[in-house]
Amino acid sequence: MSKYIFGIDVGGTSVKMGLFDMAGTVVDKWEIPTRTENNGERILPDIADSVNAKIEEKQCLKEDIAGIGIAVPGPVNEDGVVNKAVNLGWGVVPVKETIEKLCGVPAQVGNDADVAALGEMWKGGGQGFTSLVVVTLGTGVGGGVIVDGRLVSGAEGAGGEIGHMHVMDDEEEACNCGCKGCLEQYASATGVVRLAKRALAKTERASLLRDCEITAKAVFDAVKAGDKVAEDIAQEFGEILGKGFAMIASVLNPAAFVVGGGVSKAGEILFDYIRPSFERHAFPGAKDVQFVLATLENDAGIYGSAKLVLDTIVSLP
Amino acid sequence: MSKYIFGIDVGGTSVKMGLFDMAGTVVDKWEIPTRTENNGERILPDIADSVNAKIEEKQCLKEDIAGIGIAVPGPVNEDGVVNKAVNLGWGVVPVKETIEKLCGVPAQVGNDADVAALGEMWKGGGQGFTSLVVVTLGTGVGGGVIVDGRLVSGAEGAGGEIGHMHVMDDEEEACNCGCKGCLEQYASATGVVRLAKRALAKTERASLLRDCEITAKAVFDAVKAGDKVAEDIAQEFGEILGKGFAMIASVLNPAAFVVGGGVSKAGEILFDYIRPSFERHAFPGAKDVQFVLATLENDAGIYGSAKLVLDTIVSLP
Repeated sequence: MSKYIFGIDVGGTSVKMGLFDMAGTVVDKWEIPTRTENNGERILPDIADSVNAKIEEKQCLKEDIAGIGIAVPGPVNEDGVVNKAVNLGWGVVPVKETIEKLCGVPAQVGNDADVAALGEMWKGGGQGFTSLVVVTLGTGVGGGVIVDGRLVSGAEGAGGEIGHMHVMDDEEEACNCGCKGCLEQYASATGVVRLAKRALAKTERASLLRDCEITAKAVFDAVKAGDKVAEDIAQEFGEILGKGFAMIASVLNPAAFVVGGGVSKAGEILFDYIRPSFERHAFPGAKDVQFVLATLENDAGIYGSAKLVLDTIVSLP
Repeated sequence: MSKYIFGIDVGGTSVKMGLFDMAGTVVDKWEIPTRTENNGERILPDIADSVNAKIEEKQCLKEDIAGIGIAVPGPVNEDGVVNKAVNLGWGVVPVKETIEKLCGVPAQVGNDADVAALGEMWKGGGQGFTSLVVVTLGTGVGGGVIVDGRLVSGAEGAGGEIGHMHVMDDEEEACNCGCKGCLEQYASATGVVRLAKRALAKTERASLLRDCEITAKAVFDAVKAGDKVAEDIAQEFGEILGKGFAMIASVLNPAAFVVGGGVSKAGEILFDYIRPSFERHAFPGAKDVQFVLATLENDAGIYGSAKLVLDTIVSLP
């Protein structure tokens, strides 16, 4: 009987590491730096050293470890091979095979946005739902789609790229991906700033936003303070995001949208702006959906990667 | 060892019935009328009579029948209960339980659009793909979403309602569902006619379409004859449908779109109009997708419902 699972989330500047018991409680949590030099060749050995040191510290046998789950910022294939993780300097890297060799323990690998969605379903805002879409409104807009408790990673690992759903026909600026009118251009933290700058340039009206650095937080703080210009910006944000959620609902009919990332720190007020547009655009049979806030913040990745391991165990005979 | 599977597709005017061997070959195929009077109370008994007669005709034992698959035009829950099938006059009807009682054989029930998608994956245009979206461009636009070989029916049975994805912001007419700007308003057979009438009213240019009854077939026949107005209509159709497919690709990253229904009889030329818009709107990582024509036509439902039964057998221990 195994005692522990490692849940690991590899980011561009640091690797978050968690040791979980079999019930999914965090026993220990720490970070190591991500050394991206030389195409990130030290990243996996550093992780393995840290895992092995922790196993020794806990006076465990390898048999006590059920597995190591790893979330990586890039597309991952069925064999646990990553194909380009730009932020890590990686080309094609066989993560699963390498970690298994270095640690002597089974490993599971997933895309970080997908894995974070799994974490939110398991221990975060998405608890109790099995069909849900987790949307992260950060610098960009990331997503993870879960159907009947299973991640939808897509034929080429590009499932859940809802930040790049086309939502606006008349956009003139291009998104990072090269297309025009992607959801990310309006609903990410930087998207909200864009909307705010456009709105402020179009009007002479007084606004709290004229006297501060414009951030997504500043916009929603101003909304809470009753600023009319900020309310218009929030309305445009909600109109577009609600429309995007409605499109997803017509395809997948999820039970919940779980919203996280920096922009979501504004809290439940977000949903006041999203819901009216969602209601207006969604297919009637798919409208019965919950909007909830993500709760795990930066820990979603370590929880989700531990869950990756747990799911493998449960599905074995 | 079972010998046969029944695959049944219940429509508003007739019930299509197929007897399959265990390899999925059609051994026999027939139809019975759908008696919708008195809230369709005779529909299931009629089906059971026909099934039982066929079993007797083939001199089979009940044990020779692996199961009965049934496709129904309405939402179906996990227990095989249908909740409102307007075209059949049904309210809440326990289809699985009723058929099992009347026939003494296990039954599986699914929504007709979902089941047809399963059929196309198994024996039609979607063969060889496990992540695909089947789109039926008929009177309306129906859809079935399959991820890793499994149907996505959604939390309330409204998964795959891609005809009701919002794709146009400036539409003034309402869709049957009550929303404005649904994909179905442009890409269904009636949608193509709407686009054609609008286009003809906007121009004085000569067109073959001025001298005939306007149908989706007439539009694409005119395209093939080099009619410029018809080409503009096809372009608008492709622009909108390609955009809708791109939205779906960003969420699910399927390996293929399988296109069927009356409009698809225009053939591969459809894709010439859809692809450029898809390419322009889709997330780069999700662009590697095949566009293929559905091949089973009206038999997709009986194939799919036979596959429903087969999937149950395979997943048993």
